[in-house]
Amino acid sequence: MSLDRLIEAIVQKQNPTVAGLDPKLSYIPEYLREQAYQQHGKNLFGAAAAILSYNKQLIDALYDVVPAIKPQCAYYEMYGWQGMKTLTETIAYAKEKGMFVITDGKRNDIGTTMEAYAAAHLGETDVEGQAFEAFGGDALTVNGYLGSDGITPVIDVCNKQDKGMFVLVKTSNKSSGEIQNQELTGGDTLYYTMGMMCERWGEQLKGKYGYSGVGAVVGATYPAQLEELRECLPRTFFLVPGYGAQGGGAKDVLPAFDKNGLGAVVNSSRGILCAWQKEGCAPEDFAQAARREAIRMRDEIMGLVGKITL
Amino acid sequence: MSLDRLIEAIVQKQNPTVAGLDPKLSYIPEYLREQAYQQHGKNLFGAAAAILSYNKQLIDALYDVVPAIKPQCAYYEMYGWQGMKTLTETIAYAKEKGMFVITDGKRNDIGTTMEAYAAAHLGETDVEGQAFEAFGGDALTVNGYLGSDGITPVIDVCNKQDKGMFVLVKTSNKSSGEIQNQELTGGDTLYYTMGMMCERWGEQLKGKYGYSGVGAVVGATYPAQLEELRECLPRTFFLVPGYGAQGGGAKDVLPAFDKNGLGAVVNSSRGILCAWQKEGCAPEDFAQAARREAIRMRDEIMGLVGKITL
Repeated sequence: MSLDRLIEAIVQKQNPTVAGLDPKLSYIPEYLREQAYQQHGKNLFGAAAAILSYNKQLIDALYDVVPAIKPQCAYYEMYGWQGMKTLTETIAYAKEKGMFVITDGKRNDIGTTMEAYAAAHLGETDVEGQAFEAFGGDALTVNGYLGSDGITPVIDVCNKQDKGMFVLVKTSNKSSGEIQNQELTGGDTLYYTMGMMCERWGEQLKGKYGYSGVGAVVGATYPAQLEELRECLPRTFFLVPGYGAQGGGAKDVLPAFDKNGLGAVVNSSRGILCAWQKEGCAPEDFAQAARREAIRMRDEIMGLVGKITL
Repeated sequence: MSLDRLIEAIVQKQNPTVAGLDPKLSYIPEYLREQAYQQHGKNLFGAAAAILSYNKQLIDALYDVVPAIKPQCAYYEMYGWQGMKTLTETIAYAKEKGMFVITDGKRNDIGTTMEAYAAAHLGETDVEGQAFEAFGGDALTVNGYLGSDGITPVIDVCNKQDKGMFVLVKTSNKSSGEIQNQELTGGDTLYYTMGMMCERWGEQLKGKYGYSGVGAVVGATYPAQLEELRECLPRTFFLVPGYGAQGGGAKDVLPAFDKNGLGAVVNSSRGILCAWQKEGCAPEDFAQAARREAIRMRDEIMGLVGKITL
């Protein structure tokens, strides 16, 4: 009914981070790509196969250290339905290995249409009375611009299926302030207002550990806002992008955590995926390089957070 | 570089409407579903095949009357990658028949991730120097909550590929005001501010007929706001949902049009898709019933709009 399974995995692994699986072809060692092209052709099929093989090896190297993956839908969708098939298989593989899966789709719509997205990514799809899992993630990122009509259908599915969501509140990008920092007549900013709505929506999706199933996306690149929101949103778990390649460091993400070291999961994508290129190690060693970077990131953040307790 | 191809199709067909292809299994005649299940199984494959067959017959019956289709991604995504394959094939079929395709995905992200969405839905995906079309739509709906970082990458692809987009401004749902009607300290509403950003973004994507390639989604269920925005956003073309099943009538959408009858395209989904059920005609006649409703809708709106001229 919430993000409790994510929280338990974070505590168990003492690691509040998530590996962003945003696979660009240029991140994948050439030998892996060539293998896929030889089998499937140098086209969308081959690209999708290369990504699947890359992802599986990364998951193999990460699953005992990192509690969750966050595949970014856009990097699968750009390879068409073939890429979406790779997304499905990536999610299934990560779940087999016990990882929690946050599907980063930033989906948004209303009513029955939002129900369809929730079914697609978190729930089950009915075909003549039989239920099938479409993508099978554990949590989905969503955009709240359409108001409660876009969130309530997701809450319903989360309640039924023990899943969660993260609503965009204050994103990590440079221009996020254009809309999100607008000040409303009452004196609050729009991102704060969206954050307070997460708290209210979360009342319908309570968890065992004080955090609801309605989380919020708050970027590491705005530590002051992160601190403000952590204080004002005591029941809202944060997904924190912007660490590493986007410029945020361990000190910047520290305000996202509560006194028990809970309250946030920090994402790194490029840092982990491109570790082998940054290290300059053998291409065959790419997955172990990702593991080394994931451990380094964990240790850096845990060095400041201390122990995570329930 | 813009929405000019849509505008030309609207003028040529004298019909400012778009058929929303939001296929639920319950809309599809049983004989069509059974055919698909027998060939592909009563599962996600069979459901996706039933939808494709249904869509193709609808497109056959509509393409000479209606200038555009708007497939809603959620209703394809819920059938997994199999559904996304049906989306791809539906888009290709509609384009073969000369229709303009608005992919309703409400996608949003930043930087290279938004580039990936734009490549997926409007552009081309590069695989080792060769370009492949993933989904191949002509325009994409997008959500602007993340600011310019989420729009600029789409503008770039639209400029290269002669495509367009529609940004969510004032949506048709009941709770759209929770966020969109918030009043900012300057006195403007958030939807107005988003609308003015569309005008500015549109300067980078100018069209031949006075409208840019950055359109706006404005619901038929809020005619006063539709009128206000038409006046304030002279270069922004509107995609108007909410006609028919959602409660908006022809009089409600009238303010969306300029004095030449241009400026907007009105969507109907359920009205067209479920016409055979509403009529109570033979299930085999479903596509012709859709055509009859599409013509009725066209005539109802054109009765008020008059002639559409460039």
